[in-house]
Amino acid sequence: MHSVRPVLIGIAGDSGAGKSSLVAQLAKLLGNDRVSVIELDGYHSLNRQERKAVNITALHPRANNLGLFIDHLYRLRRGEKVLRPVYNHDTGDFDDPVWVEPRPYVIVEGLHPFLFQVAADMYDLKIYYDTHEELKVRWKILRDATARGYTVEEVLAEIRKRQWDIRNFVEPQLAMADTVVKLFPLEDERPDAVGVEFKEPADNPWLKEKLEQISEISVQPKRDWIGGREFLSLSFSQAMPVSTAHVLLEHMGPRGGAILGKITHAPFVMPYQLALAILASRLEAIRQELDATFEGRGRSVVG
Amino acid sequence: MHSVRPVLIGIAGDSGAGKSSLVAQLAKLLGNDRVSVIELDGYHSLNRQERKAVNITALHPRANNLGLFIDHLYRLRRGEKVLRPVYNHDTGDFDDPVWVEPRPYVIVEGLHPFLFQVAADMYDLKIYYDTHEELKVRWKILRDATARGYTVEEVLAEIRKRQWDIRNFVEPQLAMADTVVKLFPLEDERPDAVGVEFKEPADNPWLKEKLEQISEISVQPKRDWIGGREFLSLSFSQAMPVSTAHVLLEHMGPRGGAILGKITHAPFVMPYQLALAILASRLEAIRQELDATFEGRGRSVVG
Repeated sequence: MHSVRPVLIGIAGDSGAGKSSLVAQLAKLLGNDRVSVIELDGYHSLNRQERKAVNITALHPRANNLGLFIDHLYRLRRGEKVLRPVYNHDTGDFDDPVWVEPRPYVIVEGLHPFLFQVAADMYDLKIYYDTHEELKVRWKILRDATARGYTVEEVLAEIRKRQWDIRNFVEPQLAMADTVVKLFPLEDERPDAVGVEFKEPADNPWLKEKLEQISEISVQPKRDWIGGREFLSLSFSQAMPVSTAHVLLEHMGPRGGAILGKITHAPFVMPYQLALAILASRLEAIRQELDATFEGRGRSVVG
Repeated sequence: MHSVRPVLIGIAGDSGAGKSSLVAQLAKLLGNDRVSVIELDGYHSLNRQERKAVNITALHPRANNLGLFIDHLYRLRRGEKVLRPVYNHDTGDFDDPVWVEPRPYVIVEGLHPFLFQVAADMYDLKIYYDTHEELKVRWKILRDATARGYTVEEVLAEIRKRQWDIRNFVEPQLAMADTVVKLFPLEDERPDAVGVEFKEPADNPWLKEKLEQISEISVQPKRDWIGGREFLSLSFSQAMPVSTAHVLLEHMGPRGGAILGKITHAPFVMPYQLALAILASRLEAIRQELDATFEGRGRSVVG
């Protein structure tokens, strides 16, 4: 293939981890018209009523038409558009499908974006979006007990019920990720303050290597083991002066500084804002690299 | 990859078309210890009771865990072994899974082996095994009304019920096939006599080109259109002298003559026997070509 293909990004994580907010913010930073989003929940193979009838949760792969999803991922990578199914969380059933164009960035977010190796190998970046249990419970109660009309007890019971499936069908993706982004609660005066931990495979630590090039920042990565694979963990739990963040982001990718400028005009950057900027800059860098590859191929074909 | 990978063969077709018999006979000709077989029915995502509860047939892709299947196909192609699920048609539920080794030939047979493009692109040969309605009905009644205890009326009602799903989810694979093998009834003294029609894409007619090289055989291919694609149809409805068949099969592949010798010692070859020999010889030829490619790569890496 000599035409430009999308950068494919997979974001895996439990429901309630905050994936959709992350995706919306990333899309805004990259340019909404340059991003297509696939919500994997659309590929449920059974609606809510049918899942009840056979007593399985939506977390189980067999409650999902992942064959169709893998085919769509494959086609998007080849630059084709696909008609993706849409699941409606309010009705528990399906809405009309929608066309997804192969825009410069295609972000897939859901429970099983890279559970299977064949899918994992198609992405340019695989992010596992992990959120500390305490934050997840807090957010889920906030959403489901207010917007969706459940009691706090019901929400907690639901969380417990899903644990087995999460361990078996969502968390195995941790070991496949290029980067794990974990939000954790801070003991801060503000209750919504969160810290961010990046975990990267020790044999391919993108962020760690970038940080080492910057004298303003001293990194002390911790070691971690996930699914038999060594990871390095880098933690951000404090506000960072915007000047330091600027140096950092200029190292990250071609538009790092510009991206930071879109995020804040304050003199300090909070950990979550920094994480957003780092991810967006990394994606811009991948896009640029891909364009260069295709240009190079184009030239060698022509002359 | 520089290690040898399996030849992957997909055989699609409706249940009752005779796929399992074909696979068993092909495996015997190629050498049972050189062939691994995957029955796609093992990848049903719902057992019989669950399908009833949500009112879908096993023919619907959403009643199948095709994501897991595509992943297994991908892994086998890379030379890995996989643990494949097993469906039991008697109990309507699942037995213990079994390991499948990446032997020289991996044959996948079932309802949806190349329904999705991502799967279709992984095979070395895609066969759509089609059987004339009259033969299918005859065989299905024979099997289900005797061995499985249904009445003839029940069998016919079941056949009618499945038509919609077959049109939508099995037959689209006709247009993806490298070769369509269709059995049809003959007006012959023997009631089990069948003719065989090969249909091949007009832009890649393997059999037609082989036949044209042989002066003993005159071929008059008919044109056919399937799913917007032009096919050439070659029909065998008579017994062929074994000497002619021998010349034909020697053209087909490196072991064509030997394969014919395994099939018959009679002076004539019946159309179904000829079809078997043609398919087995073609697969041997693909295997040889693949071995040569890997040997070639091996040499270029070393020297």
